[in-house]
Amino acid sequence: MNDKLITDETICAISTAQGMGAIATIRVAGPDALRITDALFCSPKGKQLSEQRGGTFHFGTFGAEGDDIDEVVVSVFRAPHSFTGEDIAEITCHGSTVIQQRIVQTLIAHGVRMARPGEFTQRAFANGKMDLTQAEAVADLIASQNDAARKIALRQMRGGFSNELKELRAQLIKFSSLLELELDFSEEDVEFANRLELKELLQKIDTTVMRLAQSFRLGNAIKNGIPVAIVGPTNAGKSTLLNTLLNEERAIVSDIHGTTRDTIEDTISIDGVTFRFIDTAGLRQTNDAIENIGIGRTYEKIEKASIVILMCDATTGKDLSVRQIREIAGKMDFDGQRLIVALNKSDKTGEIQLSAADLNEFKSVSDIVSISAKNKVGIEALTTLLTRAANLKAADTESTIVTNARHYEALTRSHEYLQTVYRGLCENLSGEFVALDLHDAIDELGKITGEVSSQDVLNNIFAHFCIGK
Amino acid sequence: MNDKLITDETICAISTAQGMGAIATIRVAGPDALRITDALFCSPKGKQLSEQRGGTFHFGTFGAEGDDIDEVVVSVFRAPHSFTGEDIAEITCHGSTVIQQRIVQTLIAHGVRMARPGEFTQRAFANGKMDLTQAEAVADLIASQNDAARKIALRQMRGGFSNELKELRAQLIKFSSLLELELDFSEEDVEFANRLELKELLQKIDTTVMRLAQSFRLGNAIKNGIPVAIVGPTNAGKSTLLNTLLNEERAIVSDIHGTTRDTIEDTISIDGVTFRFIDTAGLRQTNDAIENIGIGRTYEKIEKASIVILMCDATTGKDLSVRQIREIAGKMDFDGQRLIVALNKSDKTGEIQLSAADLNEFKSVSDIVSISAKNKVGIEALTTLLTRAANLKAADTESTIVTNARHYEALTRSHEYLQTVYRGLCENLSGEFVALDLHDAIDELGKITGEVSSQDVLNNIFAHFCIGK
Repeated sequence: MNDKLITDETICAISTAQGMGAIATIRVAGPDALRITDALFCSPKGKQLSEQRGGTFHFGTFGAEGDDIDEVVVSVFRAPHSFTGEDIAEITCHGSTVIQQRIVQTLIAHGVRMARPGEFTQRAFANGKMDLTQAEAVADLIASQNDAARKIALRQMRGGFSNELKELRAQLIKFSSLLELELDFSEEDVEFANRLELKELLQKIDTTVMRLAQSFRLGNAIKNGIPVAIVGPTNAGKSTLLNTLLNEERAIVSDIHGTTRDTIEDTISIDGVTFRFIDTAGLRQTNDAIENIGIGRTYEKIEKASIVILMCDATTGKDLSVRQIREIAGKMDFDGQRLIVALNKSDKTGEIQLSAADLNEFKSVSDIVSISAKNKVGIEALTTLLTRAANLKAADTESTIVTNARHYEALTRSHEYLQTVYRGLCENLSGEFVALDLHDAIDELGKITGEVSSQDVLNNIFAHFCIGK
Repeated sequence: MNDKLITDETICAISTAQGMGAIATIRVAGPDALRITDALFCSPKGKQLSEQRGGTFHFGTFGAEGDDIDEVVVSVFRAPHSFTGEDIAEITCHGSTVIQQRIVQTLIAHGVRMARPGEFTQRAFANGKMDLTQAEAVADLIASQNDAARKIALRQMRGGFSNELKELRAQLIKFSSLLELELDFSEEDVEFANRLELKELLQKIDTTVMRLAQSFRLGNAIKNGIPVAIVGPTNAGKSTLLNTLLNEERAIVSDIHGTTRDTIEDTISIDGVTFRFIDTAGLRQTNDAIENIGIGRTYEKIEKASIVILMCDATTGKDLSVRQIREIAGKMDFDGQRLIVALNKSDKTGEIQLSAADLNEFKSVSDIVSISAKNKVGIEALTTLLTRAANLKAADTESTIVTNARHYEALTRSHEYLQTVYRGLCENLSGEFVALDLHDAIDELGKITGEVSSQDVLNNIFAHFCIGK
């Protein structure tokens, strides 16, 4: 797993955001980090960086002899007490792009190599400072675009997910050792473990694996924005609602039925949660070919959405509204999704008295709200429903949420192997076959944390990091 | 000069570049910087930031109780050993924009105020850590887009310019005290200072003031790109040269005379110097109204350029080339500018033997070079001439170069006052009048370093800084 080669060299990269800032930081990590930085550093007090303790920073001039680049502050980290576990010098300079580039060029001219994307984190992993889920969480944390995603990534970086996986894996290994014990004594036909207890343990483990795998839908939504499809009949005011929610004239609005044909998407953060609103073509019978393609896409979007806002034109009356809800909701499969019914244009009719009873037939309807998208009435009530719908199942609970497709796939495969093991036990298959599948299940969990890994997989993971991390 | 009010509050800002990076730094400065940061910081070792020595950094979790935002490293600066001269905590977090914003919001919720643009540097100035030219150099250093501008700003930040101004001002004050001594004894009609020596001293001082003021043309060119006008008859290949220099199809090129009518500008860095190339309309007699406007603009651009590349079509023969050069150079006023003659399409004719003698009449021609803009022949020779033309007078010399319009204006006004003083001495004006102008001259120099300043001027200067510095 450890790749000794990559830590022989000293590497550097600009670690702060691209472009001009007041200050910028260049990170230098590896066995020669302090020696090389020291050779290019001149302290007014005559300090030698290489003699300084870890956890201290020092002011001075950076540059090759006779070519001062900037006045800088260098922070000294001593192995193993650093992010990568190696010696690290962090050079903080004035944030001109010219200065940043000159410092990197000068380091390279003195034997430091430019870091590959994610190479610092890869070294932290190789040096045992963190496991693979934690390393991946570093990238997620940096990329987090909303507070919920940040929370999940922070928890994962701190090892929350790893601990849960290690616990699962330990249980599976215990299970496996019991099976193998039986194999050793197979000729004597003893059963060390009660088959019923074994199956119970297996089910318990599989339930957790399943729960984790299922959390990916939400985790992914939190990371990339919770998809909210706005659907309903034509001219219900869906595009007007989109514009009101985004607070800009994003979609073209008119009184003509079927104005929106392409789906229009845009994200906005509400109370720290990113929502990806999807305005869809209105659902109706039409001969317009382009509109019909749009309607087809609307159904696709409904499937992929976590929350569906079903809009009705309240001015068409209660009966018609109920019929519209029935018509559309009836066609939907609200698997794990939330459906919010929004009765639009309610300011024109007064409140429509749609009672819970009217909606009894729609078990999937979680909320109903009267709004005027045009006059911005009831929008706050709607966004409150949205954040509640998002939060109820989300990041504020302390349960682990999977946000990484690689983890999701490994969990899913692990689940499939566990199912095979279970069937094997039920069918009294030979312990050898069962043990084989069990090992595969254990391996899949090990791949998530990196206890089982290949260099190809690692390289692929870290290649998607940004440079400087 | 000092504004005590502004340093009573503790301020914060994101100091690294905007957007996502591997890491980002939030700077907190002021009397409560360490106390408030400490209250939001939790060290795994139980360290209290407020008890830590300056020059040390510490790992821990940042966030209000029960709401961890990120794992951070906090650097502790103790007054007066910091950029602003106050206590400073620099919080380095993972570079997600969400994390950066959450940390700033949390600091603000705990009594820290958002820093105004340049407020950290303004405090450094108010606390006597640097004078005004040095404070302005900080902004120039951050904004520097090429290595020459960086060098000048670094030198200025280190006090090179201030020292020269202080020396000048000290000489003027000495001069002034001699004059005033005479005033005190005016009834007795004594002369403490030899008038001739006084005038000599004044001339010496004024020469330096003039030299500094005149360096602004170059300083400004270095900061914003050295303007290089490409001029010549139509169809000489000026636009082709622009495209070749920029290495992109920036200008439309055709065989038709008068293709370029608008001037086209773009910058590129060559050997650390930024050049602003200006492709101009070809000079010829034409009845095309738009083309004539373009030709008018060509002459304006020539006036503003530091370097003029005069292009000729070498295939038209030596005599015609000389005539073209004469025609155009004759119309120019190369005040402090450099003229490089580029004989284009030279690959079609072989080298044209234009000797120095042929160009004797053009005293202003500094270089001549044969090129083929289309086939990229001789371009390196041309760019070498350009960098030499730029560097000869530029940043590699150790002389001070003024890059700031405010400094230039103060120097120019100071020069005018000094001229008046000189005339006064020549005309044996009453010492009182002479002393008045002398004081104005001294004040103007004091304004540059901030020894003389108003709050309005200061606010205006720092308002143009970026936030976080």
